[in-house]
Amino acid sequence: METALTRKIGLLIEYDGTDFFGWQRQPNVRTVQQTLEEALGDLTGETIRLIAAGRTDTGVHARGQIAAFVTARQWPAEVFQNALRPRLPRDVGVLAAWAAAADFNPRGDAIRRTYSYRLWNRRVGPVIDRNQWAHYSMPLDFDRICEASRRLVGDHDFRGFRSAQCRAKRTRLTVERLDWRETAPGLWIMEIASRSFLHHMVRTIVGTLIEIGRGAMAPDVIAHILETGDRALAGPPAAPEGLALETVEYPDKCFSPCHRRGR
Amino acid sequence: METALTRKIGLLIEYDGTDFFGWQRQPNVRTVQQTLEEALGDLTGETIRLIAAGRTDTGVHARGQIAAFVTARQWPAEVFQNALRPRLPRDVGVLAAWAAAADFNPRGDAIRRTYSYRLWNRRVGPVIDRNQWAHYSMPLDFDRICEASRRLVGDHDFRGFRSAQCRAKRTRLTVERLDWRETAPGLWIMEIASRSFLHHMVRTIVGTLIEIGRGAMAPDVIAHILETGDRALAGPPAAPEGLALETVEYPDKCFSPCHRRGR
Repeated sequence: METALTRKIGLLIEYDGTDFFGWQRQPNVRTVQQTLEEALGDLTGETIRLIAAGRTDTGVHARGQIAAFVTARQWPAEVFQNALRPRLPRDVGVLAAWAAAADFNPRGDAIRRTYSYRLWNRRVGPVIDRNQWAHYSMPLDFDRICEASRRLVGDHDFRGFRSAQCRAKRTRLTVERLDWRETAPGLWIMEIASRSFLHHMVRTIVGTLIEIGRGAMAPDVIAHILETGDRALAGPPAAPEGLALETVEYPDKCFSPCHRRGR
Repeated sequence: METALTRKIGLLIEYDGTDFFGWQRQPNVRTVQQTLEEALGDLTGETIRLIAAGRTDTGVHARGQIAAFVTARQWPAEVFQNALRPRLPRDVGVLAAWAAAADFNPRGDAIRRTYSYRLWNRRVGPVIDRNQWAHYSMPLDFDRICEASRRLVGDHDFRGFRSAQCRAKRTRLTVERLDWRETAPGLWIMEIASRSFLHHMVRTIVGTLIEIGRGAMAPDVIAHILETGDRALAGPPAAPEGLALETVEYPDKCFSPCHRRGR
């Protein structure tokens, strides 16, 4: 399909994962990929297949997902953004569309992905923000969580922090950054950046930090998991609604900040 | 009903107004008052009537609504918060409950109400935050809006900024504060404080400021409306989803900040 008559279009995508069974197309459930592919199919009259930078799970959000597709339509790239709007439900939106290089691979070319995790540590949970924050009502020690988090930064084998279904061959990764900030008392946002992540890695990291924060695990457990790769030592994955794919960066371009902030 | 055997309980309430037809009980539609009264009735076995500080409209949110009711149940006040939780849907929550004075009137005793308005002025609208921000895509001049806003602060007759249905006898009010801040490019939050407000007053003020911001009205229109009381000079009410009742203050107490931020 990628001939001289076809083009590759890149998309910057935001979605509220609450009512989606994740990114990836699956039979009989509503997914972001299927929703976008159907809207693009309706627009172009073609069968469109999207490749995304990150396949988010059920309930996980994205503010800066990147995807690409091939089309024979020779319209200006902005048409794909503007004409998609009325064809999409309110919980998914295309923030930008551009003509990409023919060999652009949103998944393989990414050099940095940044995820956020929103943790609501108050007795009473969020109401208005209930789908964007994960509520953990037991008292957590924020300083202890921050301190334990520092041990995860750097080059490690993260196989102890992945799901049983994860099929990645390389489990050695570099976490470039893992920061927590308190935006209001008890409302904490983590940001974590790496070239790539293993399946359930961010949520398993947060789940383990929560165990540490409530005193059920010692901070040392992080080092033990990294050394032994023993998944049984880690905590259960934290709730999906706190997680969001924030940005994806490429060697030549960071699509998100420029496109999201401009008019 | 208010005898020596009854008590008055105060509630601090948060709700997502998206799926409610406002606060006030009406036949055949889902309202916040009805939802809470039914949950309280289920809990107490009594017929409960709630009086609220502010009767918000369809689609309008509250982070710090205050309400009170009378009950014969002699339970500790916290019981009303904790036991209500499993009886309420996820879009309404009780953040705090306390034993109030027998003559406490959430509506009449309030000395200051603060509302916020979230205005999303980018070409592409919000997705994850779509129910909390009002999207106006035409370019608006933020400085012009801020400047015109200053003319509203102080003691004025606001009858030109109310709805035709408003039955308030006193239309002369004091707007103590009206501030705009930019939280990210194109994302603006207004806060406005007054002892009381007229029906649709905040949304009509914002709607008029939007007309000024896009250049369809001169900033002078504010002074003309305040002088003449002519509703026809003002803009249409701004979209409800941007509006939220933030806090209600009383002579002896500001319930919201302390209760909301604590554990």
